[in-house]
Amino acid sequence: MTTMQAAVLRGILDLAIEERPVPEPGPGEVLVQVNAVGVCGSDVHYYQHGRIGDFVVEQPMVLGHESGGVIVGVGPGVDRARIGQRVSIEPGVPDLTCPECLAGRYNLCPGMRFFATPPIDGSLAEYVTVHAAFAHPVPDSISDDAAALLEPLSVGVWASRKAGVSVGSRVLITGAGPIGLVAAQCARAFGASEIVVADLNPHRLRLAADLGATETLNVAETPLREAGLEPTVLLECSGHPGATADALHTLARAGRAVLVGMGDAVSLPLTHIQSREIEVTGTFRYANTWPTAIALAASGRVDVDSLVTGHFPLAESEAALLASERDPLAVKSVINPQN
Amino acid sequence: MTTMQAAVLRGILDLAIEERPVPEPGPGEVLVQVNAVGVCGSDVHYYQHGRIGDFVVEQPMVLGHESGGVIVGVGPGVDRARIGQRVSIEPGVPDLTCPECLAGRYNLCPGMRFFATPPIDGSLAEYVTVHAAFAHPVPDSISDDAAALLEPLSVGVWASRKAGVSVGSRVLITGAGPIGLVAAQCARAFGASEIVVADLNPHRLRLAADLGATETLNVAETPLREAGLEPTVLLECSGHPGATADALHTLARAGRAVLVGMGDAVSLPLTHIQSREIEVTGTFRYANTWPTAIALAASGRVDVDSLVTGHFPLAESEAALLASERDPLAVKSVINPQN
Amino acid sequence: MTTMQAAVLRGILDLAIEERPVPEPGPGEVLVQVNAVGVCGSDVHYYQHGRIGDFVVEQPMVLGHESGGVIVGVGPGVDRARIGQRVSIEPGVPDLTCPECLAGRYNLCPGMRFFATPPIDGSLAEYVTVHAAFAHPVPDSISDDAAALLEPLSVGVWASRKAGVSVGSRVLITGAGPIGLVAAQCARAFGASEIVVADLNPHRLRLAADLGATETLNVAETPLREAGLEPTVLLECSGHPGATADALHTLARAGRAVLVGMGDAVSLPLTHIQSREIEVTGTFRYANTWPTAIALAASGRVDVDSLVTGHFPLAESEAALLASERDPLAVKSVINPQN
Amino acid sequence: MTTMQAAVLRGILDLAIEERPVPEPGPGEVLVQVNAVGVCGSDVHYYQHGRIGDFVVEQPMVLGHESGGVIVGVGPGVDRARIGQRVSIEPGVPDLTCPECLAGRYNLCPGMRFFATPPIDGSLAEYVTVHAAFAHPVPDSISDDAAALLEPLSVGVWASRKAGVSVGSRVLITGAGPIGLVAAQCARAFGASEIVVADLNPHRLRLAADLGATETLNVAETPLREAGLEPTVLLECSGHPGATADALHTLARAGRAVLVGMGDAVSLPLTHIQSREIEVTGTFRYANTWPTAIALAASGRVDVDSLVTGHFPLAESEAALLASERDPLAVKSVINPQN
Repeated sequence: MTTMQAAVLRGILDLAIEERPVPEPGPGEVLVQVNAVGVCGSDVHYYQHGRIGDFVVEQPMVLGHESGGVIVGVGPGVDRARIGQRVSIEPGVPDLTCPECLAGRYNLCPGMRFFATPPIDGSLAEYVTVHAAFAHPVPDSISDDAAALLEPLSVGVWASRKAGVSVGSRVLITGAGPIGLVAAQCARAFGASEIVVADLNPHRLRLAADLGATETLNVAETPLREAGLEPTVLLECSGHPGATADALHTLARAGRAVLVGMGDAVSLPLTHIQSREIEVTGTFRYANTWPTAIALAASGRVDVDSLVTGHFPLAESEAALLASERDPLAVKSVINPQN
Repeated sequence: MTTMQAAVLRGILDLAIEERPVPEPGPGEVLVQVNAVGVCGSDVHYYQHGRIGDFVVEQPMVLGHESGGVIVGVGPGVDRARIGQRVSIEPGVPDLTCPECLAGRYNLCPGMRFFATPPIDGSLAEYVTVHAAFAHPVPDSISDDAAALLEPLSVGVWASRKAGVSVGSRVLITGAGPIGLVAAQCARAFGASEIVVADLNPHRLRLAADLGATETLNVAETPLREAGLEPTVLLECSGHPGATADALHTLARAGRAVLVGMGDAVSLPLTHIQSREIEVTGTFRYANTWPTAIALAASGRVDVDSLVTGHFPLAESEAALLASERDPLAVKSVINPQN
Repeated sequence: MTTMQAAVLRGILDLAIEERPVPEPGPGEVLVQVNAVGVCGSDVHYYQHGRIGDFVVEQPMVLGHESGGVIVGVGPGVDRARIGQRVSIEPGVPDLTCPECLAGRYNLCPGMRFFATPPIDGSLAEYVTVHAAFAHPVPDSISDDAAALLEPLSVGVWASRKAGVSVGSRVLITGAGPIGLVAAQCARAFGASEIVVADLNPHRLRLAADLGATETLNVAETPLREAGLEPTVLLECSGHPGATADALHTLARAGRAVLVGMGDAVSLPLTHIQSREIEVTGTFRYANTWPTAIALAASGRVDVDSLVTGHFPLAESEAALLASERDPLAVKSVINPQN
Repeated sequence: MTTMQAAVLRGILDLAIEERPVPEPGPGEVLVQVNAVGVCGSDVHYYQHGRIGDFVVEQPMVLGHESGGVIVGVGPGVDRARIGQRVSIEPGVPDLTCPECLAGRYNLCPGMRFFATPPIDGSLAEYVTVHAAFAHPVPDSISDDAAALLEPLSVGVWASRKAGVSVGSRVLITGAGPIGLVAAQCARAFGASEIVVADLNPHRLRLAADLGATETLNVAETPLREAGLEPTVLLECSGHPGATADALHTLARAGRAVLVGMGDAVSLPLTHIQSREIEVTGTFRYANTWPTAIALAASGRVDVDSLVTGHFPLAESEAALLASERDPLAVKSVINPQN
């Protein structure tokens, strides 16, 4: 076990399986044998465009940041009893001592090192190292796939938490991609009374209905502004400026909008925000979500396994990256680096 | 329809069914034909002791404050279209303009007029009037019993809300009486990951398990302090000082205790409260809970119907008051004033 | 005392002093002899344009909503001992029973009746009636002018409260008009460590410095984005879209922006909102601010008297409305209806 | 510079000045030349009793945890440019990666290493090492004494923050010792409208009045329950059970009590906590307070220098520990280890 396979992005549309040395866990780190890696939209975006906003891939970079596996080694200072633990990897390690970290907002740490965000390598490889505190043990009721998908589940948990979703909330979710579908499940787990999912894709809307939406809205048929909605919470997961503007327009007084989907500028109707005292914020990754995500997945309150529409061996990572484009029914691809 | 029957407490252990004039709805009020009234521990306490703390029954008082029915008349200024609506009655009407009311804490209004709290008459009668805004319409999916029991359900909603129960919370509930059982269901609906219910009564613990507790603890067998619990939230529903002290002792760092059960003084371990920065508060009735309680009951997330262990006609109100004492299996008695 | 003078807006640029009957206080109301009325930008806007957004002056309307005076009569149900009290008038009376009111957000009440907002008459008259709970007694340490100006002070209190300004906050205030100047004083009173006021008008910036800004920024000389600021709170009081966008751009991680100034749509950089998890909201009037505003003014922590740059008798109301346009040094005009 | 003097507690009433090696800063640490150390009640308590609760001095321990000085050396990984910086030392270094730390509550970290808490040595020595992030740079406007006293100031900041003190708060502070006096100043800085300080010691009450209390109450003359107070916030700084019970009794509806003073169990009237929905919590040290404390001291909003009633060289540490006992006018003693 001295070398391993890793899926390396070398340039736009240029992904190669390379032989790399198995990393050594440093002080406080563990070495994880990676069993499952979910494909995220950001992986696809880096593959197709070589950048996301200011983050530019300037040197070869291993993709992947949704991952689970088994601890197979520990660095100095880590209890050897952890070897053998099944874990879900939280893929961003902050500096722990900056004011944001000390205040509990470590997702906003300027010194954050996040998997598969240039120039940091990701986990789409046979092995990866990570800080021991960010390799979260999972019970056997959580599958390898689910261990990987606790990462997108964390995005959903964070969105509901930032939005303050609770019993009695009426939640509108725009966009029924993997994040929207996870957000819908989370909103339900947080107690929301109504969960309306809006999208253009009938297949995804059916999936949303299966996973807990109390209502789905095909905006190709009924524009958002005409649907008679008055949600108390908006979880915007499409990144579409028009959808965002329309959805904000429906919000009830003192409503709260959390912008999760990535996009460009968003235009806020000032009088609407003022006369209803709407609150708008965005999410950047997550903080302190893994224990909650584990509880949700282990108890079955959220089902991430059913989002998986395809498994791929590491050698077919490129096909996994392209799956959602090639197949309108694809939702979430999982790559198994040990295959 | 000029006179009606009402269950009037005339003194300790002296309850009479009296003939009284049907009340006239005043400006902004509705007249409700009462179909179901739940018996609360406070009704029983007034019946047995003639007082609760500083509230002393000094003149004949109609009992009852958990009630639902149908609007059969409206006072000046109320839309006549409300006649025929099935409603759940929120039994306390605040003055609406004091600082507490204007701040949204109307349950703390010094001018509150609360049903069956001396000297205000309650709703254990064929008809009752109440402010239109406090007669909450309920859908047909909510039974007459459930309409009445939205009142204790509100106590549970308020407890979870004050405690900040959410996904990931580990909740300990001490006392499995009607309020504890409702609190357990609410904690579950609010997303709690663990809900441990502790009591001495095996029957009630079984009921707790049926209604959503993830674990039950018979404290006759395992003392609370030895059960290995470390809850993040305590909902104290027993009113027992020993249970309260023991339960507070188990709370995790930054844990939050909400004291719902009524009792005398509670002794707080100062070093424990300080070294863990535990927060302790109590609940006094509820505010703004009905919409949430309706959503919970209508969706089936909380089941209050199954708490009902006996129905009684108005003429047998005294038997209803004594039911929980006579029958260890009794949980909640409901009186039907129209019978 | 059967008729009185009132300043009535009859059309665009058409203000007349009319003879009107002195109003009768209804149940729960008081009659106030109005001693001082501050001129607000909204009064000027109605005078010049006949409308603000969807609010259109379609029938003659008395202007004015910043007012103080003395109670000279009471309606049924109000303690006669209140006659003689000096009061500051909170100029919006909500319905008190809608869900927003009951939740303590009465400023969002759909049934709000707000002075000088069509079709409701304002207080620029010798006498006005208002709900007794909205005529707030003031101590003698608060002048007649200040009693009137507790209304704009409430806007500032609400902005700081919505923004969560506290000790340690670094506050940027864009716009040094009357509201910006009040907001700066409030931010200081709430404990902010840094209060930077930005504007184009050197006179107003000097006033800001005198009133408690720790730093002023003339954006004609130094663009906001180049000033090296990183505030934790933005109180936007200019209503200028460019200033808003620039100011939002400077906000620190987890910063909070409160949009107070009225204007059109504002375009937000989505990645900025997300990567810093900035929160944006707006204010609509205020709720539960009078007790705080009274405490601030009575203790001298906030000085509203020094904002007054001109006094006018009722007959010269038109001149008062035009003062800020005619005189670049004018900040706040006060009309004395008894003169 | 290889050895140094340190004040070592060897047993009850047995303090010795020992020669010890100057510590080496480890990775991420700085070496601080200590210029001022405040004497805390806990130092006195360890000196007199050898223990505080479960913390027992079982081996010789350097006392002192309120300290400031100058960085004179850095360990691996720390910018050498920090040498020469004047700093205030935050005396507890948490493990940074436990759930409490990651959630921003690092004061509750079970792995906390806190100065002068057995078995960790304190800073009453010529030199001390500490994690670089916990040696906070201070501007020259903060004296050496004040740099040391930012520690008790942090206790006051934390108390006001936990209590949510803001503009409009009416604050009662029981106990006018150093912490009570700091708490009063903090409450004022946080915007409290009324700050009542209660104690038995007229001298300290005068000091409280000088430092910002709006009212003082000598409880030897007027019992708390008879003083007509109705505070919204209680900052309990006496540790006296009777004072605590009396003070809790006065709290307004929805009031909040923060128990800062150390003592034994406190008995709470349950009905009072419930009928007013009072919240009670305690403080354990502080988290994220230094930036705020620095801002308060640097701006002069809080004056800690005037609390100092005596300076002592290291050799007279024992006299410093006994000062408050020997001299009723003593408030805070400061030891200068370089003298």
